[in-house]
Amino acid sequence: MHHSIGSFLFEYLHNQGVDAAFGIPGDFALPIFRCLEQSPIRLYTMTHEPSVGFAADGYARMRGLGVACVTYCVGGLNMLNSIACAYAEKSPVIVISGGPSPGDRRHDPLLHHKVRTFDTQRRIFEEVTCATAVLLDAESAAEEIMRVAAAVRASCRPGYIELPYDMVDLPVKHPVLRNIPPPESDQENLEAALAEALELIAAAKQPVIIADVELHRHGLTDRALEIARQFNIPIAATLLSKSIISENNPLYLGVYSGGLSEAGVQAYVEGSDCVIMLGAFITDVFLGLNTAKLERRHTLLANTEKVRIGLHAYENVQFADFLLGLARAKLLPKSFTLPPRPEALKPLGENEREEKLDAEAFFRILGLNLPEDATLICDTGDALLGAMSLRTSKRNNFLADAYYLSMGFAVPAAIGALAAYPEGRVYAIVGDGAFQMTGMELSTAAKYGMAPVVCILNNDGYGTQRHVIDGPFNDIHPWRYTKIQELLNYGQAVRVTTKGGLDQALKQAAAGGEMMVIEVVIPRDSCSRALQRMGEKLGELRDPDKKAGGKA
Amino acid sequence: MHHSIGSFLFEYLHNQGVDAAFGIPGDFALPIFRCLEQSPIRLYTMTHEPSVGFAADGYARMRGLGVACVTYCVGGLNMLNSIACAYAEKSPVIVISGGPSPGDRRHDPLLHHKVRTFDTQRRIFEEVTCATAVLLDAESAAEEIMRVAAAVRASCRPGYIELPYDMVDLPVKHPVLRNIPPPESDQENLEAALAEALELIAAAKQPVIIADVELHRHGLTDRALEIARQFNIPIAATLLSKSIISENNPLYLGVYSGGLSEAGVQAYVEGSDCVIMLGAFITDVFLGLNTAKLERRHTLLANTEKVRIGLHAYENVQFADFLLGLARAKLLPKSFTLPPRPEALKPLGENEREEKLDAEAFFRILGLNLPEDATLICDTGDALLGAMSLRTSKRNNFLADAYYLSMGFAVPAAIGALAAYPEGRVYAIVGDGAFQMTGMELSTAAKYGMAPVVCILNNDGYGTQRHVIDGPFNDIHPWRYTKIQELLNYGQAVRVTTKGGLDQALKQAAAGGEMMVIEVVIPRDSCSRALQRMGEKLGELRDPDKKAGGKA
Repeated sequence: MHHSIGSFLFEYLHNQGVDAAFGIPGDFALPIFRCLEQSPIRLYTMTHEPSVGFAADGYARMRGLGVACVTYCVGGLNMLNSIACAYAEKSPVIVISGGPSPGDRRHDPLLHHKVRTFDTQRRIFEEVTCATAVLLDAESAAEEIMRVAAAVRASCRPGYIELPYDMVDLPVKHPVLRNIPPPESDQENLEAALAEALELIAAAKQPVIIADVELHRHGLTDRALEIARQFNIPIAATLLSKSIISENNPLYLGVYSGGLSEAGVQAYVEGSDCVIMLGAFITDVFLGLNTAKLERRHTLLANTEKVRIGLHAYENVQFADFLLGLARAKLLPKSFTLPPRPEALKPLGENEREEKLDAEAFFRILGLNLPEDATLICDTGDALLGAMSLRTSKRNNFLADAYYLSMGFAVPAAIGALAAYPEGRVYAIVGDGAFQMTGMELSTAAKYGMAPVVCILNNDGYGTQRHVIDGPFNDIHPWRYTKIQELLNYGQAVRVTTKGGLDQALKQAAAGGEMMVIEVVIPRDSCSRALQRMGEKLGELRDPDKKAGGKA
Repeated sequence: MHHSIGSFLFEYLHNQGVDAAFGIPGDFALPIFRCLEQSPIRLYTMTHEPSVGFAADGYARMRGLGVACVTYCVGGLNMLNSIACAYAEKSPVIVISGGPSPGDRRHDPLLHHKVRTFDTQRRIFEEVTCATAVLLDAESAAEEIMRVAAAVRASCRPGYIELPYDMVDLPVKHPVLRNIPPPESDQENLEAALAEALELIAAAKQPVIIADVELHRHGLTDRALEIARQFNIPIAATLLSKSIISENNPLYLGVYSGGLSEAGVQAYVEGSDCVIMLGAFITDVFLGLNTAKLERRHTLLANTEKVRIGLHAYENVQFADFLLGLARAKLLPKSFTLPPRPEALKPLGENEREEKLDAEAFFRILGLNLPEDATLICDTGDALLGAMSLRTSKRNNFLADAYYLSMGFAVPAAIGALAAYPEGRVYAIVGDGAFQMTGMELSTAAKYGMAPVVCILNNDGYGTQRHVIDGPFNDIHPWRYTKIQELLNYGQAVRVTTKGGLDQALKQAAAGGEMMVIEVVIPRDSCSRALQRMGEKLGELRDPDKKAGGKA
């Protein structure tokens, strides 16, 4: 059977596990959208391109591959920040952009949507993707599609495919399937690395594993768990990998993020004589804005880019091979004593129901009401830092752009998560400033009958920044957030100011099966302990006066 | 007096005529925002970066230079599409981005907001700006600022300045002022070009000037008018330059855009034996999606990039010199007979007040109620094409991204226009799809007490695209647009379905001095004649079935 290039593209992606795509059409992309509508992939059309990228990213984090479909330049460039986020945090999103036809490009005319040259958009996306292709040639189109998809899967970074409108319906030439062997480890280096690692672990009195996000992205979490169980070594997560293992697992220590961590977690990790960092990006967030106290010779780092034991880097050692080697090794199981678990959340007393909310109370009451099977999606700011202390039992039910830290991630990512598992329950926590960026994307939830629970943490402006440098620029116009229910004519909305009010709203949300927007009013200066620590640290960095002892 | 780099930057821009800037803070940019608050420039903080770029663009189109201030990557990259628009349409916007410190960059760590390398954002902005600078060195900072600003002014394209957070408050080294002589014309070529141009014009029976947007951008409109008056040659505008001269001027012909034009205008221009295109970008929109019938040997093109008379290109001829040469030349004034002016808009009859609205009626009733001094800002789609037929008496009171055609331009550009002239009256016309992209930016109008009049043309989805290829992807979730008034707790809002209702709402808007959102309900298939012509043309291009005679 003859396929068109467009139908080949979407069938191929469907075979790779993609059952939903996100997009906004535009004239250069209309034939792609018609083709996508006819494919087995469900299409979610949204309101604004920045959200399209975040939704595809959210879907990709949950399902292993995401697709964002946009028009040329006015669509694609408007999504660039979201794709940059996916690049920084290794989320495998394929961007499919419409484009001018090969004929249009001859003589280089000024065509609408063109910025500088016809190649401008592709060159820009080269900066934030692992592979790009412009399908100007029907002969090679299928192979180009497979090349980009393979690169995206291998590196878990975004890829870019530009499909000119008049190429969509051309017959595809079926590709020669090439078996490209996966990269192999240098055996001698691998064995030496394993030997040194095992020696370090064997000698260690208090080893700890930090299980970071690359394990999840590359499907290697179970291997890391196997290692932890076999050697009986506790596991910490990071802000980016929170919930990578069940937080009820007896091996689970907590979220480590340098000086932003809870004290017991920080002390345990930094007191360790063997910190085994698996799949970790060593970012400033990982390091708690560089407050971490880790000595390199007591650490072992293995990820897709490098394997380093103490001060010795080993070249050409594949991450998966190294993990497999560790898992197969024999060592006497360690013994350990974890710091006391955080106390179980104190149930809400009848006598405190009328008390005003603050940030700590919000997270406590949320924790008391969060269904076990819910996916929690946190936006940047205290929505993220405050959630550090919540413990959930299900794996992979936490999403946040916890390294790139772009505001506006949570609401559109919740759309993506609900498209990934339409029966799932999704809670998004978002600050008022971030909600003003992309919160109206709840329009898409309404369009497709989705039922996210959205908690807007209204602390009257850019609260995180107030802790760094404050000024009128951190003020925002106060929205009546609950009016969104009337504007969209969909779901429920409620504004809560007391502990009892929040409790009741969350119970209603858990029971209701409807979209629920909860405006959570907290004082302007209220924040989690973690945010307070972060604000102080950033304040010192950004504002020399603060370091010098504070201003009058 | 010793200045800091930050205060030098904003004082310099203020001296260049910038009295308002637009932005959203972020931690790498907070010291810049503190400095900006203390500068003589008014700061407008907005809700989402795509709007920041459009607002600065709108301001720049009206005032000659605009400033958009954002944080590193998560802010800057989120504004890329708006700056690409400014590049494509030559709007002089200076992007000021926060950035990591020189110290942060040592050893290339993974710092939050970083995408791939510390230079990623600058490299991306190189694709959509005429000059970039990263101020890593206090010694050269002032000269770098002046270099970028000079390039922006000379080319009317955006520029990019990245200012690390810890450089903002360092003392600035005052720059050596260099007088860079402006580029000069090759005198022999200039004289030959003028001689050939004058010969062509002298011989022409029906010459016509197309006055396009570069005249406005480079302050040369009066020179073009001088030429038109002296030779008595009529003037057409384009979609991008509409209102470049008063549309009541006896020399004014109308808006030319190939087959999208009104019939009389198209016939006059295409029947001309000497089409003098001044400051024109020869884009597909200029050419009415390539429906224009212009023979090159009957045209004369002069802009900042080239001077071509018939088939002869003249190198190194400066646009301004060429215009001056024409203006000084002596020729017998031409005589001409313009096609009949469009009839004056028919006043609204009492008997039709109850009639349902359609697109044509909307533009007619808008035209009847548009104050003479109002600035009209049109979003992409029928909001733009339908406005082609409106005539206004004031110069430069029309804004649209009529070549790049990015949706979502009008509402944020209206904020920019009101910041440019706080006493001015601004009407934004925007489709429902485009309003869902950036319409919530009316939050910023509320924050600063602005009173735009916003007409949302609600035709139930992406109407322009329905005329090209239709499908469920052109549907959007129906908002109750008037609820925005309650959500923002600001201004007035009304939904109108009849001619009388619209008339009343516009009268109330004109009288009120309050922000007014008017949801204008028109049938899904209703559009202006120009959009119908455009849809048919694009449909043929994008959908081969349509060209072949239409589908069943």
